[in-house]
Order: sequence, then C-alpha cells, then structure tokens
Amino acid sequence: MRYALIVSYDGTHYSGFQRQPNARTVQGELERAAEQVFGCPTRVQGSGRTDAGVHALGQVCHLDGSTAVPAEKLKDCLNRFLPNDLRVLNSMKAPEGFDCTRGAKRKTYCYRFYFSPTEQPLLSRYYARVKEAPDLAKMRKAAALVTGEHDFKAFCASGSSAKTSVRTVYSVDIRESVIGQARTFEIAVCGNGFLYNMVRILAGELVAVGCGKEEGFTEAFASGKRNCLARTMPACGLCLMNVEYGRTPEGC
Amino acid sequence: MRYALIVSYDGTHYSGFQRQPNARTVQGELERAAEQVFGCPTRVQGSGRTDAGVHALGQVCHLDGSTAVPAEKLKDCLNRFLPNDLRVLNSMKAPEGFDCTRGAKRKTYCYRFYFSPTEQPLLSRYYARVKEAPDLAKMRKAAALVTGEHDFKAFCASGSSAKTSVRTVYSVDIRESVIGQARTFEIAVCGNGFLYNMVRILAGELVAVGCGKEEGFTEAFASGKRNCLARTMPACGLCLMNVEYGRTPEGC
Repeated sequence: MRYALIVSYDGTHYSGFQRQPNARTVQGELERAAEQVFGCPTRVQGSGRTDAGVHALGQVCHLDGSTAVPAEKLKDCLNRFLPNDLRVLNSMKAPEGFDCTRGAKRKTYCYRFYFSPTEQPLLSRYYARVKEAPDLAKMRKAAALVTGEHDFKAFCASGSSAKTSVRTVYSVDIRESVIGQARTFEIAVCGNGFLYNMVRILAGELVAVGCGKEEGFTEAFASGKRNCLARTMPACGLCLMNVEYGRTPEGC
Repeated sequence: MRYALIVSYDGTHYSGFQRQPNARTVQGELERAAEQVFGCPTRVQGSGRTDAGVHALGQVCHLDGSTAVPAEKLKDCLNRFLPNDLRVLNSMKAPEGFDCTRGAKRKTYCYRFYFSPTEQPLLSRYYARVKEAPDLAKMRKAAALVTGEHDFKAFCASGSSAKTSVRTVYSVDIRESVIGQARTFEIAVCGNGFLYNMVRILAGELVAVGCGKEEGFTEAFASGKRNCLARTMPACGLCLMNVEYGRTPEGC
C-alpha cells in the first residue's frame, strides 16, 4: 500500500532533504524510522529536495509498505523513531497512482527576513537579516513582474539539472510586521515548480530592488543573466509551506 | 559612568539569567564580554532574573564602567564578545540614579503556546504545546479577573523569597493566530512585578480554564492555594518582552 505523509522539519541541523552518506538528512531520518516501523528497508520519496538549512511546514512524501496500523496512525508510529526537529504531521492512504514528486501541481515557499541594525537572537533561526530597510512598494512592483510564465534562467544557481528554466509563478505576496525593534518581511511565492535556489535568489533580487537597485533586476529578468547587484539569501529564511496536488488525499 | 543596556536572548541553552558557577547563564556571558571591553571584572545587573529556558526580547541591564567608546557604540563592542544567542540591542548612558532592578515600573511577559495533535518542529522552540483546544472566550473572562491589585499567592511556585505576594497586573491580552495546521495563542501579561513562576502558572491556569476546568481557577484565586487542576507551563513558551521605567533613557 502507498501512504502519503505531510512532514514538517526545522532544517537548521540537516544537510538538506536528500539522503546522503555520512550526513544527517530528512530523507535519511524518515527512512530510518520507516525501517523500524515496517521491519524492512523502506524508501521515502519527497515532493522535492530542500537544501541544507531550509525548513518545511508542509513537505509531502510517499512510501510503500505493509502494516496492520491504520493509515492515519502511521504518523504516530513514525514519530516515535524521529528526532524532535522532524515530525510527520499527517499520514493517509494515498489515492491510486499518487506520486508525491510527479503529481505536485503547486508549491508555496515563504522567505522571511528582518531589518535591524543588530542581530536578533529570537529571529535568527528562521529569518535572515538585511542591513538596509527595503521599500515595500518597490518590492511589490518588481514582484508583480515575476508573476506568470517566464524563463527564470537568471534566478537559477549553477549546478541545476532542470531541462527547462521556464516556470509559472502564480503569486508573490509580500507582508511586513514588527517584532520587537525589528521590521520583519515575508515573501510568499507560489508556483508550479522552482529552479535550484530560485526562491532564495528571487528574495535577494527583491531585497536589492527594495534597497534602490532596480536596474539590476530589470536587466537580469530581460537578459536571463544573474544580477551581480543581488545576493542569494541564506537558507535559514526559507520554508516550504505546502505542496498542492490536482487530485489529492485530504490535506495534501 | 553607568550604562543601560537592552538585551535579547534565546534562552534555550541558558541556565537562566542569574550568574552561577559552572553553568552557562546570561549574566555570566554579559559579564565575560564586559570584562573584555572594560579590561577589568565588571558586574552586569538585570531588571530581574529569568529562569532556565526563558527567552527575552527586551531585558534591561545596567553596568558601571569607564571607556572612551560612545555609549551608543558600547553595544557593538559587547556583541563582539557575546555568543550568537545573546545580543545587546541598545546601549546608552543611564540617567542619574538609574537602577534597572529597583527602577523597573512595569514588565511585560508573553506566554506562547499552540494546540496541535502532533508536535510542530517549527514552533517547539518558542511555543509550548497543549493537547486540548482551549476556549478563548473562557480564557479571556478568567484573565479579566486577574487584572488589578491582588494577592497572587496561588500563582507562586514554592521557593520564592518575595516579601509579599501582592502584585498589580495592568493587563492580560490573549491573541490567537493560525500557523500551518496549528492554532497558536499568545498571553501577554503586563504588571508591576511577578512572583516566582507566576506567568507560567497563570498561563497554565488560563489554559485549564479554556479546557473547561473553571472551578479550580476560581477556588485557587479565592483561597490563595495552588490549583491542582493546572500545571506550570514549560519555560520555552515564556519571553520577557520589555521593562518600563518611570523616567527612562530613550528606548528603556
């Protein structure tokens, strides 16, 4: 039987999602737990990889196995063998033909950062810091250009194995709130898929635009070449919020 | 010269604020940094102690020392010698006669928790988990009883050295928001001072009331005896938000 899982993790101490020899990975920990529960080596597949240090609130995985435990209770069995910074939030029987990787229709990532003259110990685990206060109106204007189907070549780190760099971004929402003395920002990006480092590069571009470096962004977007004015934002600010499927088990 | 500091820390890996031999404490780390900056052993006093595992967004401290560095820049000097989970957010010349402990007029603590059937790795550092969904309206009704000058004997852990258990609570604000699949709650309590564990006990009482155990709360409040239906909530959910002074250096 195939099971679908919704998985959340604090990525701080993981070398990313994908299994690697001699490294602590999310997939590695999930497979170790699954082996304990099913009594045999069990592959756990994810909707996609997340990089080292990136968090997830709603990563979707699937695995095949056989157990007398009801599908809804499988999460409790797995959680018993998982470390504290990784939890299965939901488990269910996957519908016929469900594949968490190939079936993924939309993903939403959230990039969080804050502006503060000093590092903030209560934010630094889940937010990146920027040293200049960005202009939200400028960021939103640039974000609007990104929406739709585009070639995102300029927003892709080298080393990507993707066949095409054309992706559709459904929405980019930018919100601000104040925590203590810090202004915090959230960039939520929903799309049909993302290139290697695309959200972190896009977040860096939008921050650069917000700090008055508009030309670089427009040029990069038009030419498909990386903008030398912007930086790739650090992993700690990125979180995979959810993955949506055309026809889904409840909650996926 | 006396300096006032606004200090923030992630309390997870601290044995509380107060200096202790052979333990990692906030005061200990601040004094170690101050000794580096001033070149001699330097006492750093806090507005009050926070317990092991409790966080602070705006703890206020003072210290006496002599340096050519402008008061506003002292924070940068101290931060150079502090670990990542502890930062001085502001430093300034303290006004004549300023004492961060005796001068504190109002403190605001925030207690954060979430309701979710499963632990949430992205919340568990700064939020406690409750297994039942509390009723906000009931909690707010009970919170209203707490406001004002009362004997908070029933909300004090044993081992307190306070002369009196009478305190004034200026306000208790309870807010709910949803993060992923979890309902999160914040109880912000502002008062002229707090007994040992008072906010964590009060949070536990309010959660018990929210889960339908109203009698215990009313009884405890009337009799001054601890309510056996409620538990002291864990340290991770507690954060000292700010300390206010009658006459203050800017920002205190």
